[in-house]
Amino acid sequence: MNDNVRDQQLRQQPSISTALCDALLARGVKHVFGIPGDYALSLFDTMTHSALTVVNTCDEQSAGFAADAYARVVGLGAACVTYGVGGLKLVNSTAQAYAERSPVVVISGAPGISEITGEALLHHRVRDFGTQLRVFEEVTEAQAVLDNPNTAYGELMRVLNVAERTKRPVYIEIPRDCAQLAIDTTALITPQLAPVDPATLAEALAEALTMLNAAQRPIILAGVEVHRFGLQDDLLRFIEVSGIPFATTIMGKSVVSESTPGFVGVYAGSLSNAQVRSAVEESDCILNLGAMLTDLNTGIFTAHLEPSRIIMSSADTLTIRRHHYAGIDLRAFLTALNAADLKERAPQPASTHVHPTEFSPTPDSAITVSRVFECLDAELTDEVAVIADPGDALFGAIDLTIHSRTEFIGCAYYASLGFAVPAALGLQMAEPAWRPLVLVGDGAFQMTGLELSTAARYGLTPIVMVLDNQGYGTERPMLDGPFNDVHPWAVTEVTKLIGAGQGYSVHTEVDLVAAVRGALADTGQFAIIHVNLAADDFSPALRRLTSTLGKRV
Amino acid sequence: MNDNVRDQQLRQQPSISTALCDALLARGVKHVFGIPGDYALSLFDTMTHSALTVVNTCDEQSAGFAADAYARVVGLGAACVTYGVGGLKLVNSTAQAYAERSPVVVISGAPGISEITGEALLHHRVRDFGTQLRVFEEVTEAQAVLDNPNTAYGELMRVLNVAERTKRPVYIEIPRDCAQLAIDTTALITPQLAPVDPATLAEALAEALTMLNAAQRPIILAGVEVHRFGLQDDLLRFIEVSGIPFATTIMGKSVVSESTPGFVGVYAGSLSNAQVRSAVEESDCILNLGAMLTDLNTGIFTAHLEPSRIIMSSADTLTIRRHHYAGIDLRAFLTALNAADLKERAPQPASTHVHPTEFSPTPDSAITVSRVFECLDAELTDEVAVIADPGDALFGAIDLTIHSRTEFIGCAYYASLGFAVPAALGLQMAEPAWRPLVLVGDGAFQMTGLELSTAARYGLTPIVMVLDNQGYGTERPMLDGPFNDVHPWAVTEVTKLIGAGQGYSVHTEVDLVAAVRGALADTGQFAIIHVNLAADDFSPALRRLTSTLGKRV
Repeated sequence: MNDNVRDQQLRQQPSISTALCDALLARGVKHVFGIPGDYALSLFDTMTHSALTVVNTCDEQSAGFAADAYARVVGLGAACVTYGVGGLKLVNSTAQAYAERSPVVVISGAPGISEITGEALLHHRVRDFGTQLRVFEEVTEAQAVLDNPNTAYGELMRVLNVAERTKRPVYIEIPRDCAQLAIDTTALITPQLAPVDPATLAEALAEALTMLNAAQRPIILAGVEVHRFGLQDDLLRFIEVSGIPFATTIMGKSVVSESTPGFVGVYAGSLSNAQVRSAVEESDCILNLGAMLTDLNTGIFTAHLEPSRIIMSSADTLTIRRHHYAGIDLRAFLTALNAADLKERAPQPASTHVHPTEFSPTPDSAITVSRVFECLDAELTDEVAVIADPGDALFGAIDLTIHSRTEFIGCAYYASLGFAVPAALGLQMAEPAWRPLVLVGDGAFQMTGLELSTAARYGLTPIVMVLDNQGYGTERPMLDGPFNDVHPWAVTEVTKLIGAGQGYSVHTEVDLVAAVRGALADTGQFAIIHVNLAADDFSPALRRLTSTLGKRV
Repeated sequence: MNDNVRDQQLRQQPSISTALCDALLARGVKHVFGIPGDYALSLFDTMTHSALTVVNTCDEQSAGFAADAYARVVGLGAACVTYGVGGLKLVNSTAQAYAERSPVVVISGAPGISEITGEALLHHRVRDFGTQLRVFEEVTEAQAVLDNPNTAYGELMRVLNVAERTKRPVYIEIPRDCAQLAIDTTALITPQLAPVDPATLAEALAEALTMLNAAQRPIILAGVEVHRFGLQDDLLRFIEVSGIPFATTIMGKSVVSESTPGFVGVYAGSLSNAQVRSAVEESDCILNLGAMLTDLNTGIFTAHLEPSRIIMSSADTLTIRRHHYAGIDLRAFLTALNAADLKERAPQPASTHVHPTEFSPTPDSAITVSRVFECLDAELTDEVAVIADPGDALFGAIDLTIHSRTEFIGCAYYASLGFAVPAALGLQMAEPAWRPLVLVGDGAFQMTGLELSTAARYGLTPIVMVLDNQGYGTERPMLDGPFNDVHPWAVTEVTKLIGAGQGYSVHTEVDLVAAVRGALADTGQFAIIHVNLAADDFSPALRRLTSTLGKRV
């Protein structure tokens, strides 16, 4: 083959950048969130000329949160930034994606291979040129530096496969002088995962069936991993066929529609209502399907769950009572359960979850947290997706009825304040048919709320409800001081700063109903609803939680 | 000693938290920047009841930037946050402090020792409970987990000593159930540093003197390390006694007053003006005192500096021509120079740095970047301290005349956008007599500009000038696309959102003069000046720089 022919072939080969774009698109990713910088300009240019849409956020940390929410809906998300000043702003959001199993691909530009020889003091460098990679080794499941055209494609596929298989974030670094190198995309060997051992699965299934079939009051506790691994239909089938009722955790809230027959509510130890608590804690066989037993999921470990009555199936292992079956993952176990011979039970009753359909505002009554959620429960329509920031926005939302699957998103484990507004960008880009309703406190809004600017730029229409209790309300019952105060903002003025959106100021129940209905009817722009609460007004769930937390400070 | 006596003694001993407060106060730190969280509430409570002032920022990353600026003025700064969601937001700002030698103490709460047994899934946890510590090992010079009352005091002193000695950030983690443990603060052994070897110093000094005394056109290139190690007075003495003129780097700008006789200007390769460039590059002996030869300091390596004419003294080593003298640091070398027998030269002439004292606005003339800086050069008073965000705000500011030492702060090496507004909080807390003037682009303002809320809360009065060229202007000449656009903000509306401050909208030169004078005269509140520039208006320095950078993308 002469040089001309080789050159022509190379020109037809994709570059590292185009191969990355193609691989993301092939996996359903249509939007990449981020901010450019000189080390990443070439990447941004390639993305802009591909079928991907680049979404510029105001700050990089928001790009990480948006990509996280996008990944929770689509199954994979991506954030692209420059080296150092961009990448290291994504450490916290990536840590959250790791903890909560959200497969975000972090893509970072980097100094060119030809620049980093010797001890060059290039801008955005920290200690040496490996600092950022080593930091991301701590918060991602796999990493690759695409600096070799011969191995780049294999490396790219390797890390994307890890993201898809483990539902954890991964890290890809591309030196700027490598981004346009042509690469070889052939001759890849796809790794074969170890198959599930049939004998182990049979032994585990037999033991589980014996427990389930003998139980008088079995219950399913469905968790977030059912969603992450795309097993919602398998779960629904099992709920219907088995006739066993189910609860979800906070993290697993809305993993399937809360109108599904058999649904008893969200279980979270002392955070949950008495009916759900009794259904779970007095059960003689709890089938845990993908529920992580985190502190918040268990109401700060106030959950009383007796191990001898538990079958716990997770992404990594299966535990029955106090022993473990290695290598039996949630997908294998749930598939086996659906093919198994279950004891016949009565058909599922309709959902016992209380769902008011009407909210009557008391005239002149000052608005309270409880009434906010009662109003939302009655007013929210099927196309509304709820995103709750950590704190009372999250706890108050536990008992909201979510009509469809995945229409509730919250970071209920890692709990990074300021997640919700940027997450709304990712959610609505992922599913334009959904209208995001963001529930966020006044403190968290000051962290990232100005990302409404990004909503305006890209024509997104979230409804952002700022639950303003004049500070970090979750912390006041634990230990209070001026450090829990927040400077007051006239948050509806954000619309003038940004030059878009509609603001609503709420002091009474009547104001609230008008604001919620007005925002829902005004589908063409974002809304910001400023709910002026008393500083000492907490949801009942938060009161129970913080009385537990207060003992630990 | 019976138990009662022991208990009484323990009660009189400081706790880990109070020892930390005392140690910070003893080192001149009076303000700690941060946001609480349940793992850090006890720490915040102790700080609030100590002589320290806690300054709550809107987001944690701003606390990191504020502490960095504080450290640059005071010599040590501190940020305090909660575990995970707080700590990991500080990675980028701490990386900048590391790269630019700013001694910031990062203090993080953490889950209690009694909680982290086993595999507990506590909120804010990433992979395991060591994740955050390992991340900070990459971006700090020393780390300590204060979880043992017997060793806590020694560990605390060790990391604070490292911060002071190396001028790098350090990391302190305190499990929440350890914060109030009484500790032993006696019997510490202070490490003795290896002394400078007198024979090596003598040999180095003799060689340097031979070069300096033989030189016809010697010049001093003074860098930021002179400031970091507190050697400004030594430098001034040497400048006066030696009669050798001096330039500074961008990072070293204002290391001593720019009114000092002998000052020729800021040198940065092709970024600098012809006069300064000639003085440095045509010198036959360049005495580099603490100037880091970073890419931005050298105009992206456009500096033409011939090694055979250079004496380079830094915090770590001394290099003359192409050979190194180990263990001779900047302090030792500068002290020796001041005691040495220098050739007599003519007294320093007055500064040749051009300093216009009057700015005459052309009526109806649209404002441009060049004219902004000409106006500022004439209007700024001695008490104004300039903080420049990376980008044209920084490059345009190179030739501003800074009247006092340390009154110019910029992150001219690591270059993290969004540094300047939070830095103004740190600067004015550190030195209330200074009025911060923040120069920031529209893109960077959207990252952290709302920290003006924190200024309002604590009565700080920065003047923030937003140089709005409708996007990431620094990047457009390199490679342009929609990813360099920024959604337009009516930035003066920030005053209504926050309920404080005075806004000025500038379209013409006449507007600008009125705004600058108005803001300077109105000393009781913060000001925000919105300078509406054309999208293609760059400073001449930026034009030169980006034509170099464009070749590398």
